[in-house]
Amino acid sequence: MFSGAQVSLYPMTDNFVGIILQAIDALEPYRSTFRIETDDISTLLVGPPDQLFPAMRDLFVAAAGQGIHCVLAATVSRGCPGEPDDPICTPINDSSHEKPLAERIAMAVERVSAAPKTGQIVAAQFSLYPLGSGHHMDEIYGCIDFLKQSGVFDRSKNFCTKLRGDAGPVFATLSEAFLRFGSPQGHVALDLKVSANSPTAA
Amino acid sequence: MFSGAQVSLYPMTDNFVGIILQAIDALEPYRSTFRIETDDISTLLVGPPDQLFPAMRDLFVAAAGQGIHCVLAATVSRGCPGEPDDPICTPINDSSHEKPLAERIAMAVERVSAAPKTGQIVAAQFSLYPLGSGHHMDEIYGCIDFLKQSGVFDRSKNFCTKLRGDAGPVFATLSEAFLRFGSPQGHVALDLKVSANSPTAA
Repeated sequence: MFSGAQVSLYPMTDNFVGIILQAIDALEPYRSTFRIETDDISTLLVGPPDQLFPAMRDLFVAAAGQGIHCVLAATVSRGCPGEPDDPICTPINDSSHEKPLAERIAMAVERVSAAPKTGQIVAAQFSLYPLGSGHHMDEIYGCIDFLKQSGVFDRSKNFCTKLRGDAGPVFATLSEAFLRFGSPQGHVALDLKVSANSPTAA
Repeated sequence: MFSGAQVSLYPMTDNFVGIILQAIDALEPYRSTFRIETDDISTLLVGPPDQLFPAMRDLFVAAAGQGIHCVLAATVSRGCPGEPDDPICTPINDSSHEKPLAERIAMAVERVSAAPKTGQIVAAQFSLYPLGSGHHMDEIYGCIDFLKQSGVFDRSKNFCTKLRGDAGPVFATLSEAFLRFGSPQGHVALDLKVSANSPTAA
């Protein structure tokens, strides 16, 4: 298993460098868990799939908490076949894929309800891509059922799904969708944008 | 065939609203060709697949030309099975999928060489996802061969490929990768970020 994300943070302010440098401190607790590399476009996180969304949540809430309009964009992947297995990327803990779909949906909803609130309201938009063979359409429809029950479902849009709510349950919902559906060893990619403090938010 | 993109523009400045409103004028020539809808996260373009990248190029160059650091992020899709056929989305013109792969690579390289320069240097990072069945690995490897010969290939990164150069050939390369490889009627998604004027660009 190889899992990780290419993550970018876009603060819509003249002081974007300052906001990014301050927000990136929020990744400190994750530095022992992840390999982290930055270039001019994105920051690579390679590590355990179930820590990816908590790390992105903490990074984003640290930036958005400064009050400016900002967006996090990420390309998240697990089971990428072009990459060697990396011991830093442990298998998904407690994925419970052996349980029936209805039971897993209920577990995912419960985890989202239990997610700690952050006090930061966000809007998120994402597309989930099950790649290669071995993914059953039942799993995809099950994931959609889960999203509609998550409490943060906003609406389906062309090419993507939109969520809205506190960053805690929103990132928990994204994490559950990424981890608990589709083949546990299959290749899954997720294309994500999360926005806060937009002047045009509904 | 249903094709389109969810496009967002992120100018890293206090005046982000002004920059976006000014840049969006660059979409005027495309309004008769595309259905365009905007919300607080992105602008939907639905229309002919071969006009998507020219429209995004013109939008991005209009924003970046104002000198600030800005990023365009887009989720681009063709052949999405969840969407009804839309007459606004014409089939891919002149896709030449009947020709052998080597010949199509040569044609794609030629089109990129012929792309008009814009004077705007950009860095782009993207992931191409051939979804469902019917895509042959030969096509994917052929696309990678093409990218390496495009003249704007920068490097392979985890989960994505990075390009760098004038916006003209960079967007032309993205368009060729999206249109000319994989099954012509298959579902293909592309996750894109394009950046200009970054203070940390190499």
